[in-house]
Amino acid sequence: MSIIVLGTAALDTVKTPAGKRREMLGGSAVHFSMGASFFTQVNLVAIVGRDFPKKHIGFLIKKGINLTSLIVEHGKTFRWEGEYRGDLNSALTLSTELGVLSAFRPKVAEHQRHIENIFLANVDPDIQRHLLSMMHKPRLVGLDSMNYWIDHKRKSLMRLMKDVHIFVANDAEARSLSGETNLIKAAKALRKIGAPIIVVKKGEHGVLVYCDDFIFCLPAYPVERIVDPTGAGDTFAGGFMGYLTLVKKINDSSIRKAISYGTIMASFNVEGFGVERTSKITKREVDERLRYFKKITMF
Amino acid sequence: MSIIVLGTAALDTVKTPAGKRREMLGGSAVHFSMGASFFTQVNLVAIVGRDFPKKHIGFLIKKGINLTSLIVEHGKTFRWEGEYRGDLNSALTLSTELGVLSAFRPKVAEHQRHIENIFLANVDPDIQRHLLSMMHKPRLVGLDSMNYWIDHKRKSLMRLMKDVHIFVANDAEARSLSGETNLIKAAKALRKIGAPIIVVKKGEHGVLVYCDDFIFCLPAYPVERIVDPTGAGDTFAGGFMGYLTLVKKINDSSIRKAISYGTIMASFNVEGFGVERTSKITKREVDERLRYFKKITMF
Repeated sequence: MSIIVLGTAALDTVKTPAGKRREMLGGSAVHFSMGASFFTQVNLVAIVGRDFPKKHIGFLIKKGINLTSLIVEHGKTFRWEGEYRGDLNSALTLSTELGVLSAFRPKVAEHQRHIENIFLANVDPDIQRHLLSMMHKPRLVGLDSMNYWIDHKRKSLMRLMKDVHIFVANDAEARSLSGETNLIKAAKALRKIGAPIIVVKKGEHGVLVYCDDFIFCLPAYPVERIVDPTGAGDTFAGGFMGYLTLVKKINDSSIRKAISYGTIMASFNVEGFGVERTSKITKREVDERLRYFKKITMF
Repeated sequence: MSIIVLGTAALDTVKTPAGKRREMLGGSAVHFSMGASFFTQVNLVAIVGRDFPKKHIGFLIKKGINLTSLIVEHGKTFRWEGEYRGDLNSALTLSTELGVLSAFRPKVAEHQRHIENIFLANVDPDIQRHLLSMMHKPRLVGLDSMNYWIDHKRKSLMRLMKDVHIFVANDAEARSLSGETNLIKAAKALRKIGAPIIVVKKGEHGVLVYCDDFIFCLPAYPVERIVDPTGAGDTFAGGFMGYLTLVKKINDSSIRKAISYGTIMASFNVEGFGVERTSKITKREVDERLRYFKKITMF
């Protein structure tokens, strides 16, 4: 079993109270891959420019990420610059340069179209739809988005939600798309739009899962020194979807476990800039953190 | 075993998206009593004016609250008027009339001074200190405060924290008193000031407990229809302290259970205006909610 992820590969410039990094490897598909590749083989679908450093390509290959469907195009790689202040919960975007991303039309190698587990990380919902239409036998499809698409391509996004199994949103996005302030009401409203499993990410406050049959709440793993939260949500989704790729049945029990793995993966992400920390996670560290997390949340 | 609580008895006028109520029974000691009286006998130390409706006195007596040390003074009862908008996480204070509260000097009947479990709900730290000094053999002392005292009587508050076992604060207060943004760092800093058990209430995002030996995180009980959050923190503290009053040992295990009871009690509070909902809690409802809460948080 493997997974295919559509999203961005980017060069991120980030300033946080812990320091600053220029043009590090980032992007939704890359952070997702860090979380998911711990569990399963990841196939990345994204676009970068010719200026994308070779060392990043080398790094991803070394991590076992299949780059067959990574397009390298004439032009500049997508760049994002942001800053975190205060409580580190939300980034201030300083600049966004789309570069080659503005004309992105994903391609998927024929043999990759048989992959059954699919994650549509945050890009234009029409591009997400296009990728999904290329896949031959989706077993599990996860979808993420962002406020920009909620505001500008709401209809496309809502239509797409009917064709996925899992919709992942942060609290602000869940509220904005549903028009509900209360997050349980918001999740319920999102479920009515389409996806049977709604995952609301609340950053440092944890996560809420809503399905027809059950709900599930988990606090975030407590991290004392947050270095850079960029990509935490994507890393969470990677751990979550990566674990679900392995299991036979998507049910109450496997979703709980997947959420806890996503939480643990995200906790590593925030401890370093970009993929500095997530690129070095060991099985022992994950097991240890999971054990500790259970201990501090059981009553 | 019983508990004594020092705090306010008030007449609250509250507007929320669910409606408006004028001059309902409220105040920190009253809401605390609603949470604690489910577990143990509560002795209330507070002051009200002659205008305090007799039906409220009758209601409290009927709930089994001991009012021996409730002072009824010439003058007006403490009144608070507030409004909640949007996400219901914080109130906008429209007016505060201290009335008789401005000259409050708590009195405790001699036989009540032997009560071993004490909660100092939010009033002037000097008044909290005064009450504590009257008690003969404190076994378990909990302390709450608010931003006003953190700003205006920081030294008194910090001194008092050294003489209590449990310090309860909401996230904003924990940050403000510690100077730390990260809540784990904040809790650690508060523990250094004094109290060995730090409880940080995060409203709809749950609670964090920090002790030297362990930490504990719990999400809030998910409530879909929040009617009025006023007093949720005090009701939480009531359930938490009320349960601890019953146990032989204050340890990891009893604290976890106490926190879960506090969480359940607070979840009832937000479902009605003032004490409308908490005054009617049955054992069966609490057991049911606790069972459900375990189910939706276990992984």
